[in-house]
Amino acid sequence: MIIIMETNSTHEQIENVIESVKKLGFRPHLSYGEEKTIIGVIGDERQITDSYFKSLPGVENVIPILKPYKLVSRDFKKESTIVKVENVLIGNGHRVVIAGPCSVENEEQIIKSAQIAKKYGANLLRGGAYKPRTSPYTFQGLGIEGLKLLQQAKKVTGLPIVTEVMEVSEVEIVAEYADVLQIGTRNMQNFRLLQAVGRINKPVLLKRGMSATLQEFLMSAEYILSEGNYNVILCERGIRTFVDYTRNTLDLNIIPAVKKLSHLPIIVDPSHGTGKRDFVIPLSLAAIAAGADGVIVEMHPDPNKSISDADQTISPEQFADLMKKINALESLIKTWSQNGR
Amino acid sequence: MIIIMETNSTHEQIENVIESVKKLGFRPHLSYGEEKTIIGVIGDERQITDSYFKSLPGVENVIPILKPYKLVSRDFKKESTIVKVENVLIGNGHRVVIAGPCSVENEEQIIKSAQIAKKYGANLLRGGAYKPRTSPYTFQGLGIEGLKLLQQAKKVTGLPIVTEVMEVSEVEIVAEYADVLQIGTRNMQNFRLLQAVGRINKPVLLKRGMSATLQEFLMSAEYILSEGNYNVILCERGIRTFVDYTRNTLDLNIIPAVKKLSHLPIIVDPSHGTGKRDFVIPLSLAAIAAGADGVIVEMHPDPNKSISDADQTISPEQFADLMKKINALESLIKTWSQNGR
Amino acid sequence: MIIIMETNSTHEQIENVIESVKKLGFRPHLSYGEEKTIIGVIGDERQITDSYFKSLPGVENVIPILKPYKLVSRDFKKESTIVKVENVLIGNGHRVVIAGPCSVENEEQIIKSAQIAKKYGANLLRGGAYKPRTSPYTFQGLGIEGLKLLQQAKKVTGLPIVTEVMEVSEVEIVAEYADVLQIGTRNMQNFRLLQAVGRINKPVLLKRGMSATLQEFLMSAEYILSEGNYNVILCERGIRTFVDYTRNTLDLNIIPAVKKLSHLPIIVDPSHGTGKRDFVIPLSLAAIAAGADGVIVEMHPDPNKSISDADQTISPEQFADLMKKINALESLIKTWSQNGR
Amino acid sequence: MIIIMETNSTHEQIENVIESVKKLGFRPHLSYGEEKTIIGVIGDERQITDSYFKSLPGVENVIPILKPYKLVSRDFKKESTIVKVENVLIGNGHRVVIAGPCSVENEEQIIKSAQIAKKYGANLLRGGAYKPRTSPYTFQGLGIEGLKLLQQAKKVTGLPIVTEVMEVSEVEIVAEYADVLQIGTRNMQNFRLLQAVGRINKPVLLKRGMSATLQEFLMSAEYILSEGNYNVILCERGIRTFVDYTRNTLDLNIIPAVKKLSHLPIIVDPSHGTGKRDFVIPLSLAAIAAGADGVIVEMHPDPNKSISDADQTISPEQFADLMKKINALESLIKTWSQNGR
Repeated sequence: MIIIMETNSTHEQIENVIESVKKLGFRPHLSYGEEKTIIGVIGDERQITDSYFKSLPGVENVIPILKPYKLVSRDFKKESTIVKVENVLIGNGHRVVIAGPCSVENEEQIIKSAQIAKKYGANLLRGGAYKPRTSPYTFQGLGIEGLKLLQQAKKVTGLPIVTEVMEVSEVEIVAEYADVLQIGTRNMQNFRLLQAVGRINKPVLLKRGMSATLQEFLMSAEYILSEGNYNVILCERGIRTFVDYTRNTLDLNIIPAVKKLSHLPIIVDPSHGTGKRDFVIPLSLAAIAAGADGVIVEMHPDPNKSISDADQTISPEQFADLMKKINALESLIKTWSQNGR
Repeated sequence: MIIIMETNSTHEQIENVIESVKKLGFRPHLSYGEEKTIIGVIGDERQITDSYFKSLPGVENVIPILKPYKLVSRDFKKESTIVKVENVLIGNGHRVVIAGPCSVENEEQIIKSAQIAKKYGANLLRGGAYKPRTSPYTFQGLGIEGLKLLQQAKKVTGLPIVTEVMEVSEVEIVAEYADVLQIGTRNMQNFRLLQAVGRINKPVLLKRGMSATLQEFLMSAEYILSEGNYNVILCERGIRTFVDYTRNTLDLNIIPAVKKLSHLPIIVDPSHGTGKRDFVIPLSLAAIAAGADGVIVEMHPDPNKSISDADQTISPEQFADLMKKINALESLIKTWSQNGR
Repeated sequence: MIIIMETNSTHEQIENVIESVKKLGFRPHLSYGEEKTIIGVIGDERQITDSYFKSLPGVENVIPILKPYKLVSRDFKKESTIVKVENVLIGNGHRVVIAGPCSVENEEQIIKSAQIAKKYGANLLRGGAYKPRTSPYTFQGLGIEGLKLLQQAKKVTGLPIVTEVMEVSEVEIVAEYADVLQIGTRNMQNFRLLQAVGRINKPVLLKRGMSATLQEFLMSAEYILSEGNYNVILCERGIRTFVDYTRNTLDLNIIPAVKKLSHLPIIVDPSHGTGKRDFVIPLSLAAIAAGADGVIVEMHPDPNKSISDADQTISPEQFADLMKKINALESLIKTWSQNGR
Repeated sequence: MIIIMETNSTHEQIENVIESVKKLGFRPHLSYGEEKTIIGVIGDERQITDSYFKSLPGVENVIPILKPYKLVSRDFKKESTIVKVENVLIGNGHRVVIAGPCSVENEEQIIKSAQIAKKYGANLLRGGAYKPRTSPYTFQGLGIEGLKLLQQAKKVTGLPIVTEVMEVSEVEIVAEYADVLQIGTRNMQNFRLLQAVGRINKPVLLKRGMSATLQEFLMSAEYILSEGNYNVILCERGIRTFVDYTRNTLDLNIIPAVKKLSHLPIIVDPSHGTGKRDFVIPLSLAAIAAGADGVIVEMHPDPNKSISDADQTISPEQFADLMKKINALESLIKTWSQNGR
């Protein structure tokens, strides 16, 4: 942590800051510039917040040097993490495609979805049983019934299941049916829920909050890892900006940024990220080209009949086209890596 | 709901949309412009989402006409709601000041805080017992112990208590000790939690999510009201923007917007909204001048010793100054209202 | 400037950075933390950009310490600047109200506007002769004809004129007629134009760019001062965020931030900031309460007949109400300052 | 244009709106919903702004139906435009790579840059002679001297030149030396400059403003086309959001959006879009995968010696790698189009 004193800070104020640094068990390190005095704080700054020093008289700014996260950091673990879901590998060059409807609607719909997903090469099946909806008056998901239908779909196709959990008290039941527990964007900082999924023995798909910085995103993952669950897959799903031609602004720039700072895999959700069916294929390909470890897309046997999110759900034909192109793109990228990307 | 067809949409596509409108039990209403055909959807559109029609071929855009919220709407209830917390009234001209430390730290600190708050005229005491923290490694609050200390502070000063609840399973215990349950910004769309506080018999302080639109904010309040709890106080606490000289961007523009659309009271949190101690007084006054029903501020007997959020916590002296100015400003505003504002 | 090395940076990389620092004529200052090595750069860093060091191998981050602006800084000039427009003072406790129509439309309209502005106590008259419009197909202003009409309005009422200049080649003619030259939000970083108005002998009203940080805003003012023109009035007029209930998000938080960092006066434009007629009075009062040196509002004798921006233009009655309230609020604030605010 | 009346609007208010519609020469079209009355405005709404009706009593909202742009619209021109720069084609499947240093520094640097660009397959050379800089104290470009050096580089390599023009009075001289005139992000709404480059006979590269909506971006292009210059290349270069791990947030979602609404080609600038050298290759590939018509990248013979933007400038080796991958990716994409993408 570095404390920058105001240009006109007094000798007394500087002494006071130095005393505070020492009192907290850190070592101060002074540096006099031409205009500003700077005080380095030597020690493990993760135990304190920058807000403490910011409030002292004469302090202009406080700049943290260490990252506040540890377990998720690439400094902590050099090799990229591979998350294993049954026999599916995710991360470190293993790319995953997760597909399925926004909501589980009925037996026929989810089984048909699973069969189409399987047929064209998806690795996992997605489908919402517990649905977080902006309005209390719209469809809230089938609940346990939905979980059972997902299980049936898995039996038919063998595809492992990804589904959302919204509440601590529901973690147990969802974990019973699901192979990957999804934490939705609105719950990215629901810390009790993060802790709860940190204590179970199933991989977690953590969606980025709509206005989460990268640091906040990684700190939420850290909550899960710090409880003992190291199998976390990050998921970019669009951020909130001023832009209005897409539902959210899918932020592919986060992919190389995550790769640099963390060992965790990161996938991309172009369905929620753009909110537009016709944008799903180009942005999926862009995600893979940018280095994502996979994509998660909303697909429905008859998308115009989808109960929710119809406008961002692709058809089986579009999904087939997407898979063909993703596969070709991956083959191309592999040739680059072999020659030492 | 209004469906705008693409300029080149075919007769067949238009017919198909009309059929879909009818099939869902609505009446279509056609209008041919010079370049575009428009189809009005007559009926209670709250039962469907716009995403359904957006996905039909030839549709360019779908524009909802009705607001998706009902109970929180001023169309539904003309008179401004007054929330009553013991003998404190909030809303419709009754302004409230809520003050206290970020976190309950110990007995001396919270009782002293309460006494100072009381002395200078605060109406309610705030203090965090359950703390949602970005990092799993920082102080997470005293929990039940904190609730008990808040109760003691209430006994000493008579000030009712506002404190945060983070999880469904904690609603009961928090409601036992608190007079107002706070839903934090990170939980604004934790729908299970909204439903849970909707079922208890205590007022709720609902903080706006960092990137919540006004509609999403009101929909979250609607979740609470739809469960039977009509005593909701909205709270603007800063939104996330590109701006970096404040922790968040306090958005006072929402005050007249809420007043127009909803009957619920709205207060402002300039401590989190700006993150800077010296900005709390000017922005509090600005909030009141803009028509807010009150403010909630972080105040600590010795702010530089505050465990959390020290840099945005004001001192007793600053609080005294704030109260003096707020009172004078309110008196001035009252003279305007009497002459028919 | 502080250079933070990566945790695993090599001795060689550190040496290389130190060499680079020296080669540029600066003195390096090393500090070894528990995990990170930090290199302070001693000297006037304003001559280099941080991008240079950021690109060196082993460098994690580079943090500027000195502000890049000088002349606009309060470090440079302690006392608040007072800008003088004929006999009107702006800044350091002297509050200004600027009012008038969005566009100059015709003689009757602008003279009537000026008379109303004068009658209720405005200090300056605004009105657009050269209009920057998003669409090439809408009214672009009366040009020189408009300037002449403004001059007539000044003759009738004595109110000095504020009007926009859009282009270097128009600076001379606008300066001939106007008392204050306005630089619009879209031209905040039109550096040639900033330099041009920096060379004339008239005050400049510099509007904040829609997505300008405070530093960029002050740097644009620095461009003007650096050419010799010290009479700059800053103007907050709303930033672009995800919010959709106002045309822009008026950011009053910038007021205390500017007051801290700069000696220049800052006023607020709630008309463009909110885009809504009914929000102009509450947000004007909020701006004054937050410490602004004044407001600039769009007012029209018959606002519904305004050629442009009708929905954010207030009526003469609203303007009268606004002035009454601003005056009362200012009187109140003055009593606070006298007792040592 | 559709006018939505408030739920409680009176008969008189509705009549008044209808009268206003007629008076402006449009035909009103009434539609009574269950809660709201809606008035369609039939005629060419581009001649009026929505602000006019918004200000009438009883009006809740006004929704434009027609796009405000014409010439840039795909409704106006079905086939994708191909811009021709000497023998280089851009758009409709013809992809372009523009490369070169941020600033022209000296003869050796720009000629070496051009030779490297040429060697690995770039189509056009970029380089700044007139530099818009945030600070008046940093390098502002070599001016005419820089233009002459660019011309020399063209003579040596045959690569046509792209360079920025900042001011109306400089259009002529820049057009004399450049093959494509670039309008920078800060000048996207410098309407005088747009009109000036609309009157010359050279292609224009129009960079998106940092906070420009798609509509504003297209309207700025419309300014150029409306003056007679149809050779406009759009360029996405990152928008301003809350995100801090990239200099800007490169928004690839705009690519399919532009393709849908406009016939103009769109390219992507990942150098400014991300501000990080290591992000340029992944985001360039992502741009091409998303359907962009090309990329423009900052490349320098010795990037760490670049006067400006060193941290986002790639090396010759990185550029060679980028070209190899872009070429392979394009070949792959072409196989898809041939089979009817």
